Amino acid sequence: MLTMQRLDQQDAQHLIAGARAKATEIGVPMCIAIVDESGNLIAFERMDGGKTSSVIIAQEKAYTAAAARKATHEYNQICQPGHLVFGIHTTLSIVGGGLPVTVNGEVVGGIGLSSGTPPQDMECAQAGIDHFLAQIS
Amino acid sequence: MLTMQRLDQQDAQHLIAGARAKATEIGVPMCIAIVDESGNLIAFERMDGGKTSSVIIAQEKAYTAAAARKATHEYNQICQPGHLVFGIHTTLSIVGGGLPVTVNGEVVGGIGLSSGTPPQDMECAQAGIDHFLAQIS
Amino acid sequence: MLTMQRLDQQDAQHLIAGARAKATEIGVPMCIAIVDESGNLIAFERMDGGKTSSVIIAQEKAYTAAAARKATHEYNQICQPGHLVFGIHTTLSIVGGGLPVTVNGEVVGGIGLSSGTPPQDMECAQAGIDHFLAQIS
Amino acid sequence: MLTMQRLDQQDAQHLIAGARAKATEIGVPMCIAIVDESGNLIAFERMDGGKTSSVIIAQEKAYTAAAARKATHEYNQICQPGHLVFGIHTTLSIVGGGLPVTVNGEVVGGIGLSSGTPPQDMECAQAGIDHFLAQIS
Repeated sequence: MLTMQRLDQQDAQHLIAGARAKATEIGVPMCIAIVDESGNLIAFERMDGGKTSSVIIAQEKAYTAAAARKATHEYNQICQPGHLVFGIHTTLSIVGGGLPVTVNGEVVGGIGLSSGTPPQDMECAQAGIDHFLAQIS
Repeated sequence: MLTMQRLDQQDAQHLIAGARAKATEIGVPMCIAIVDESGNLIAFERMDGGKTSSVIIAQEKAYTAAAARKATHEYNQICQPGHLVFGIHTTLSIVGGGLPVTVNGEVVGGIGLSSGTPPQDMECAQAGIDHFLAQIS
Repeated sequence: MLTMQRLDQQDAQHLIAGARAKATEIGVPMCIAIVDESGNLIAFERMDGGKTSSVIIAQEKAYTAAAARKATHEYNQICQPGHLVFGIHTTLSIVGGGLPVTVNGEVVGGIGLSSGTPPQDMECAQAGIDHFLAQIS
Repeated sequence: MLTMQRLDQQDAQHLIAGARAKATEIGVPMCIAIVDESGNLIAFERMDGGKTSSVIIAQEKAYTAAAARKATHEYNQICQPGHLVFGIHTTLSIVGGGLPVTVNGEVVGGIGLSSGTPPQDMECAQAGIDHFLAQIS
């Protein structure tokens, strides 16, 4: 039997709170998705003004980051024609804004942001993780 | 030009809070989905212990209730072989637990619950609406 | 943070071995799928002669049993026109042959069998669980 | 009438054993999928620690290699903007790690690996084939 660590709902709310605060600060209402270590949705918030298309995109980013244990922008950098990973973008999200959430060296979930530019999405996702880690430390 | 009334994020949190409180009271951790009047997700919470399969089912119920402006259990009762609505269950959710959210006679969103029996899901969805309406009145 | 128990690969092989032995005994080559507690595939075996269509069906049964924490034949009995759960069969498998795998009162995975009649599938799924539980006790 | 040669379950287990041994050697737990000459799944193993997202990707690679009778990394090299094969990546996997299994000049199945880098996945897939061919020679 395996023993897995997984974000709980309170953890998810900390992640959302940190991401929301940064999104508010930069003036870009976002969709924020939090998934568990297997990629299944735990919590989601579309801030007032967040894009409808980002409902799915935020979830895809969070899924990729957690299930593949890699930031979406890292896939983005290598997923180019001629590179052996090219093509992965039809199955996983490679758009910047999805980050794995790691505790004690283990991926316990993922966060995905969408509605801004990828750098804005990435900044807010990181802010979510920073706030979460500050709460549990 | 049309002017639409739509749940905002605070409304969605009131709906979730009411549903969560009832789910906690009856001892059944739930997945809770809130969508806007177009059926697009605004907020989602998987309570600790909520079923993985309910992540999708809760969203399908909320979507149906808002977009079709009808409670999923009402579709359930008429969606029977021989009735002309039979077959709608391949496109919409007809499992009890999805309710439209109506304000001033207008559907402004939907709530979908999943993880319990349909009567439990329906009870928690209604508790969400009751709590929401009490907050805005 | 939540701590989850999940079948490991050796557990999955015990489940398959028990199911395979029963399938061989009754002379019906089967597809056998084992998923974790979230419904994601851990191991799969199509016995020589197993049906091609059962590749998917066995996985759907295992997914349902684990993610919804309920045997597929239990859903089957209540998923009838006029019952509030009717319609769930468009999202989950309600065909007999999927069983949750429970250890210490916690669902840690699921097993799905397909290629025989539902009673045959159910018998082989149960044989898989019996063999697994005998190995870990 | 056609007579097809197809991997049997024992062949599939040889393929998995060889791939698993190499994955263990390089320290990267993998998802390993084996399909028949038509692309339908015969056997699957997610090694403890294999990625959830790789459950699907490993199967896509194995499917492509067998059904299209071409290694996924060969598609990868030609699937570039301006080449007439470009676009095939929306239907088939072109990520390195899927190899056809050929016996007596005939494709009898496919193997797909996922969780490492494409070169790691390719190395483990080849190790599976090498081990299989050694067993049947």
